Amino acid sequence: MSDTVDPPRHPEGATGEPPRQARAVATRGAILAAAAEEFAARSYHEASLSRILERSGVTKGALYFHFVSKESIALAVVDEMERLCRGMVERCAALGLDPLRTAAQIAREMQDALDGPELRAGQRLCGEGLAGPQRPGWPFAFWQEVFTDLFLRADAAGLFVPAVDPSSFARTIVDVSAGAFVASLATTELTDLAQRVCENWELLLGAAADPAWLEGWRATGGMGAVLGPHLGRR
Amino acid sequence: MSDTVDPPRHPEGATGEPPRQARAVATRGAILAAAAEEFAARSYHEASLSRILERSGVTKGALYFHFVSKESIALAVVDEMERLCRGMVERCAALGLDPLRTAAQIAREMQDALDGPELRAGQRLCGEGLAGPQRPGWPFAFWQEVFTDLFLRADAAGLFVPAVDPSSFARTIVDVSAGAFVASLATTELTDLAQRVCENWELLLGAAADPAWLEGWRATGGMGAVLGPHLGRR
Repeated sequence: MSDTVDPPRHPEGATGEPPRQARAVATRGAILAAAAEEFAARSYHEASLSRILERSGVTKGALYFHFVSKESIALAVVDEMERLCRGMVERCAALGLDPLRTAAQIAREMQDALDGPELRAGQRLCGEGLAGPQRPGWPFAFWQEVFTDLFLRADAAGLFVPAVDPSSFARTIVDVSAGAFVASLATTELTDLAQRVCENWELLLGAAADPAWLEGWRATGGMGAVLGPHLGRR
Repeated sequence: MSDTVDPPRHPEGATGEPPRQARAVATRGAILAAAAEEFAARSYHEASLSRILERSGVTKGALYFHFVSKESIALAVVDEMERLCRGMVERCAALGLDPLRTAAQIAREMQDALDGPELRAGQRLCGEGLAGPQRPGWPFAFWQEVFTDLFLRADAAGLFVPAVDPSSFARTIVDVSAGAFVASLATTELTDLAQRVCENWELLLGAAADPAWLEGWRATGGMGAVLGPHLGRR
């Protein structure tokens, strides 16, 4: 399985060749990193296996050892996206913020993650019908569940005005987030995404959150403060 | 150019064979109708030329006379979508409603059009990066322009609360509309789309419209009345 001409990249290799398994992991990682770049930059049907090969520096034989097709590489990129999204939710929940601030923090983590290619590639691929049959409704059903849970807790804590239905509000947040991505991608290559996200959340929280919560939220800078470095930067 | 075995479909054909040109138009139309069905039901990469051929009842030769590739058929389906969308805007403008009601009526016409395959196919294809280079940012840039124009006029007529920025509100409407389509498609095959659209517009107009306008709007049934037959039907 001599599948690259690079020097060993693993500590295990310092005293010789890396073990086969470590090298296989490194090769698979190099392919996935190159694939994320390719699928983030191009639609699935425009993406090419030869560009992925070139970027990854692995041989065709090594690529076909790990993946049987372009589709199987795309599905592995969506696996990475899933891991990323689940990690975001766990990290935000661990911050101990109130449920509405936790939701806003997830939107911030999304922007952080969109600086790298994995999430951009995953989002594009899902929009192109490549989430894979093992993930029905991904990522929308997942985010719907995450935000419904947060908004039910916000409602129980009195953070919403009475007219708001938590799961309906969660659907609107999912819709506006999904749409901001596709519209910003198509019109500005994501340049205006953070600004769109900021304005959408300000408008929606302004419509749904309890006035007392909003006062405290605005006193700490609102969504602009949450998104901070992403605004006016891309 | 004997490309179908069907009897002539045109009035011109009543006294004999249809002229070549009329038959070519009918053949092209049959291909596009079949392609819209196929691209509405499947992602671009899953769609197959042979299923399009089968549905359309035309020969392979006839198909390749009109279109050089799957991509060129997809682009022609997006041409149809563009024609449809521009027609919607013209029809809604001609109703003489106020600008916010005109905007809501466009959302209704969208639902009407989504009963047929052309718009569903076009939306999917655009989401998959197949709007074509001759239509940069399509359809998002188009809708952004349409809604910004309407909302600037609504603002000038005093139909918004003072805090609302018309072009920012237009972006939010574009985002939530685009996202509702992709999220509803991925999670419910569009079954819940009309309900999502209804709730999104109620929430957003509730946040942005002047209280006096809202009172009149709600007295006439609000977005539920506008979407009427689409709610609880799909």
